[in-house]
Amino acid sequence: MSEIFENSGRTELSQLGEFGLIEHLTKNVKLYNESTIKGIGDDAAVVSHGGKKTLISTDMLIEGVHFDLMYVPLKHLGYKAIMVNLSDICAMNGIPTQVTVSIGISNRFSLEAVEELYAGMLLACDKWKIDMIGGDTCSSQKGLIISITVLGEADEDNIVYRKGAQKGDLICVSGDLGGAYMGLQMLEREKAVFLETPTAQPDLEGKDYIIERQLKPDARMDVVELLKALSIKPSAMIDISDGLASEILHICKQSNVGCKLYEEKIPIDTLTYETAREFNLDPTVCALNGGEDYELLFTVPQSAYEKIKNQPDISIIGHIVDESEGHYLISKSNNAHEIKAQGWNAFKGA
Amino acid sequence: MSEIFENSGRTELSQLGEFGLIEHLTKNVKLYNESTIKGIGDDAAVVSHGGKKTLISTDMLIEGVHFDLMYVPLKHLGYKAIMVNLSDICAMNGIPTQVTVSIGISNRFSLEAVEELYAGMLLACDKWKIDMIGGDTCSSQKGLIISITVLGEADEDNIVYRKGAQKGDLICVSGDLGGAYMGLQMLEREKAVFLETPTAQPDLEGKDYIIERQLKPDARMDVVELLKALSIKPSAMIDISDGLASEILHICKQSNVGCKLYEEKIPIDTLTYETAREFNLDPTVCALNGGEDYELLFTVPQSAYEKIKNQPDISIIGHIVDESEGHYLISKSNNAHEIKAQGWNAFKGA
Repeated sequence: MSEIFENSGRTELSQLGEFGLIEHLTKNVKLYNESTIKGIGDDAAVVSHGGKKTLISTDMLIEGVHFDLMYVPLKHLGYKAIMVNLSDICAMNGIPTQVTVSIGISNRFSLEAVEELYAGMLLACDKWKIDMIGGDTCSSQKGLIISITVLGEADEDNIVYRKGAQKGDLICVSGDLGGAYMGLQMLEREKAVFLETPTAQPDLEGKDYIIERQLKPDARMDVVELLKALSIKPSAMIDISDGLASEILHICKQSNVGCKLYEEKIPIDTLTYETAREFNLDPTVCALNGGEDYELLFTVPQSAYEKIKNQPDISIIGHIVDESEGHYLISKSNNAHEIKAQGWNAFKGA
Repeated sequence: MSEIFENSGRTELSQLGEFGLIEHLTKNVKLYNESTIKGIGDDAAVVSHGGKKTLISTDMLIEGVHFDLMYVPLKHLGYKAIMVNLSDICAMNGIPTQVTVSIGISNRFSLEAVEELYAGMLLACDKWKIDMIGGDTCSSQKGLIISITVLGEADEDNIVYRKGAQKGDLICVSGDLGGAYMGLQMLEREKAVFLETPTAQPDLEGKDYIIERQLKPDARMDVVELLKALSIKPSAMIDISDGLASEILHICKQSNVGCKLYEEKIPIDTLTYETAREFNLDPTVCALNGGEDYELLFTVPQSAYEKIKNQPDISIIGHIVDESEGHYLISKSNNAHEIKAQGWNAFKGA
């Protein structure tokens, strides 16, 4: 928070004006991709994906709805805003290449604050060599609004939709789940402590992994590359933004299939597990409904089993069944629980 | 306004949830373009512009900053939001083909209100056969936020940037200028009257043209098509969103040239002229600094003069000079006034 409100070195946005601000923020933008013919600075950007197909996805983030600047530093926010968009392109088995960034900013923010936000966005772009090619910068009446559109590319044959899962396919997930949600719980708890006792120091010791899962998620471009290296094309894929339960139901709905997941197979990091227990939460429920892990959930034909079974960062957590068999989680005690979407509802209490 | 607050037939957004709302709003989306391989409904959309280049532009509109729902009906707002984005693609001499739409909505809005907004957007899409291929729908803490990204296509050789204007080129503009600004003045005046005397009826009689210029602008796709039919490729082009003065300076700055505009040549509609006088405003100043006309401002080589001089919807308003000669408007009384950008500053008083 401190950087937003401190007075030393505060530059008002009104001193620069819209064009000045855009020029200032974008002067460090580097272009990495040959497909970017013209970036920022004209009425539109120009890209060419030649014989490849262009993938497009967009996301809007609003202060107080999607993030809380009490505990999310602006640099992390910028980084995450880019990453969650890249993740959508990965979920199509594509390679993200360009982003446009629009921000609405209230006069509560100084130039220095907006620079922090951009620094985080450019750091994320640099990590995966993404070109920032355009955007819009305007004032908002309240809070910070970020809207990002990402373009990516893929050969038509390699694009993976949500709708291709077949009966018998293995259900796989990258990384581990529930960590981002437990990181959020930690941050929310510290915020509550802080609001009660402003002199208290945050107690996040030993919680680095889950805090990072929440504040600095990474798009799994490496998994897209791994699948390519293994010559595996998933039959269906989605990224986990709303939680495993919600996402597997999306795949099943669009593919007209059912699923069977096994609780004991769901990858949960030890720290996530222990922190969930500390909060009297069921770790499996956190993995199912927590969301924001930005891991990839995908299905592959059984023939891919040999190739995938020993990949340390991929877990096989179940299989696709006939639609008539429904959508079930088999618990460790061998009970079948129906899977229901309890993902985040954007309009609850809005 | 009335439709937003009326109680009869009001459906709360929370009844549908995010996925339900998206499904409801997008069920009438038609796809028109062969280049759209996959639209709404997966992690990303897929487009293919084959051998052509993809053009991308994006805009954010925020209630209270860019529009006032006191006098802008939601259907018009949706229509205009799409059109101003299409206009950016036209300004590159391209053909817009797809849009993504993200909206943030506070719980002040009912489903019926959001449907109106979408109806306007889809009407604009239908007019120019644009595919809506994706988006994001979320709640906002305050007011309505609209973020649109548009894709278009063009052969690489036909793309027109801001930077190509050459000394001696003719400066041309489509349609007429200042009307959208005078429409806004009318609406602002009626709003003030209404706030003082809520029973007063709006007095907009005879002002249809300028009201429509403000509320329902059209992207000049027809001008792009006309230029193509005339085999004219402009040397530089931009659309007029901030006003003629600001836009010609953008072209000059990026082309490293100067300009001479002639006041008597600037196309101003009679109603715009008379209304400006009524408001004690200088009609030329309204055309120079008013903005939001979304006409195309472009430069062509002198060799195009014969082709363009009799086009009823195109005015030749000046010519490009050496950078050292500066940027001047020659008044009707033959005085030279330096042109200064007084476009809308997004951060003034924000």
